[in-house]
Amino acid sequence: MKPRRRSPAVVAFGGGHGLFAALSALRYLTTRLTAVVTVADDGGSSGRLREEFDILPPGDLRMALAALCGDDEVGQLWADVLQSRFTGAGPLAGHAIGNLLIAGLWQKLPDPVAGLDMVGELLRIRGRVLPMAAVPLTIEADVFGSDPRRPDELSVLRGQATVAKTSGDVRAVRLVPANPPARPEAVAAVLAADHLVLGPGSWFTSVIPHLLVPELCEAVVSSPAQRILTMNLVPADETLGFPPSRHLEVLADHCPKLRLDVVIVDPTFAVDDPPLERYARSLGARLVVENVRMRDGTPRHDPHRLAAVYAELMNR
Amino acid sequence: MKPRRRSPAVVAFGGGHGLFAALSALRYLTTRLTAVVTVADDGGSSGRLREEFDILPPGDLRMALAALCGDDEVGQLWADVLQSRFTGAGPLAGHAIGNLLIAGLWQKLPDPVAGLDMVGELLRIRGRVLPMAAVPLTIEADVFGSDPRRPDELSVLRGQATVAKTSGDVRAVRLVPANPPARPEAVAAVLAADHLVLGPGSWFTSVIPHLLVPELCEAVVSSPAQRILTMNLVPADETLGFPPSRHLEVLADHCPKLRLDVVIVDPTFAVDDPPLERYARSLGARLVVENVRMRDGTPRHDPHRLAAVYAELMNR
Repeated sequence: MKPRRRSPAVVAFGGGHGLFAALSALRYLTTRLTAVVTVADDGGSSGRLREEFDILPPGDLRMALAALCGDDEVGQLWADVLQSRFTGAGPLAGHAIGNLLIAGLWQKLPDPVAGLDMVGELLRIRGRVLPMAAVPLTIEADVFGSDPRRPDELSVLRGQATVAKTSGDVRAVRLVPANPPARPEAVAAVLAADHLVLGPGSWFTSVIPHLLVPELCEAVVSSPAQRILTMNLVPADETLGFPPSRHLEVLADHCPKLRLDVVIVDPTFAVDDPPLERYARSLGARLVVENVRMRDGTPRHDPHRLAAVYAELMNR
Repeated sequence: MKPRRRSPAVVAFGGGHGLFAALSALRYLTTRLTAVVTVADDGGSSGRLREEFDILPPGDLRMALAALCGDDEVGQLWADVLQSRFTGAGPLAGHAIGNLLIAGLWQKLPDPVAGLDMVGELLRIRGRVLPMAAVPLTIEADVFGSDPRRPDELSVLRGQATVAKTSGDVRAVRLVPANPPARPEAVAAVLAADHLVLGPGSWFTSVIPHLLVPELCEAVVSSPAQRILTMNLVPADETLGFPPSRHLEVLADHCPKLRLDVVIVDPTFAVDDPPLERYARSLGARLVVENVRMRDGTPRHDPHRLAAVYAELMNR
């Protein structure tokens, strides 16, 4: 009898729907799963809570928690409840219940990681959800033509919500404050990982920001883990018109030391982008072109298809 | 070997800290426990949520849920989290997390009982928490001397928060709307119960209101269950100066058909009130004078002492 293999230690980076997709796949493959989540959201429910309580914006953390709720009926009820929002036009309208739960626990346990660990325990999630930085962050971007009437003008946009929706051409993003401290728990998880998973997600506002946290970037670069990048299926607003190779280019621009082992891309996005394989190779990565899109054709990652690709990469 | 006895079916009526005390004792004795909870609160977090969403006030329901959370570490964490409140001066300040959770679930599942059952399932509570009526209620009271400068003037006070804090002499309470519909689940639980437990609690605003819901009153009166009334340890604001016998008198005033089997009273409250036994007998009840106060002398019921008295009454 072969000894039973230990579940691999996996760290997934990101925020929003992209990280949700990665976690929804990875949860099939391991119980040793850590999500390291962006904390720069300034819109909607998160923006309001951040302003009211001077806390990390909880929205992306909530989505990661929802992705890691149990498979049983109670777990799936919780996932649903965390994500649901108050309606109406009163003071609570628009708040996600999960955001209020996280913000409420931070009132009791002001250390963000202690509070998140408690939410995780209460919800009996599999894995752990950590913030990518110890302080709330603002994203600032250099954008050409953010005003469509002046396509050649470079302007500076502030705030994740604004940057993510720009119709201009984003050239660079920065964090404010610059060089924020990482959480040591996140650094430790990266250094102890067997596999690191970056993307998919809003490129400038959910994927790149992690690499602008110096200790986290250093840990990603020096970790012995396999580094897997999952490309988006289509460009989001903030990368409109970018072919996949341009996505790799801006990633390298923001983190010149980054080396990757694998880049996963769906054939519908890779098509008509011959330089892609060369760009992947220049980052040290093998290009894996696989169907990871939902079978119904919508531009969302299919968690089972994505899990199949991750599983093969992790079993080598 | 004797067959193992089935857990008794117990229904506890009330609201606030009084019901919390009764449930904290009863949870040791049975897994078939239903709390039927007042829905007339109009103050604080409950009042604001009621106004914003036109829902049942969640506060008393939340306290009952907290009392029924599991004994394990996660259960006790949940109890603590449900009860904790947002601080500060912003739009969320003062809201109990549990109130927001209940109100949020009612956005998804507008039927109050379906929503509460879902909260109960999520929190893995023991027992069930039901509202005493199907609609939000307002308490209205006839009060002598609510203005201390005019001690002989009768005035009508509206709202549980106002009535509960009056320094005047409360003569009668009413529900607005009068004769509200009960929830059939609550009526069914009462009719199927082995034991009904009324009190302790704010007499006019948490104990009597249940008996002003006609179907619930009818069910209490006609149920084959043993009817146990637990007296308070000291009079609250709204019954300031009332000896225990006067408490029984106003209860009978509001529900002339009510018959009781047992009245439990702590000796520190029963002392100096010779008519008490006669009043109890006039309601059909045996008076049980037992130490049920916390050992540290504070005017709170000790859950273990109370459980010991209930256990003896339920094992007869």
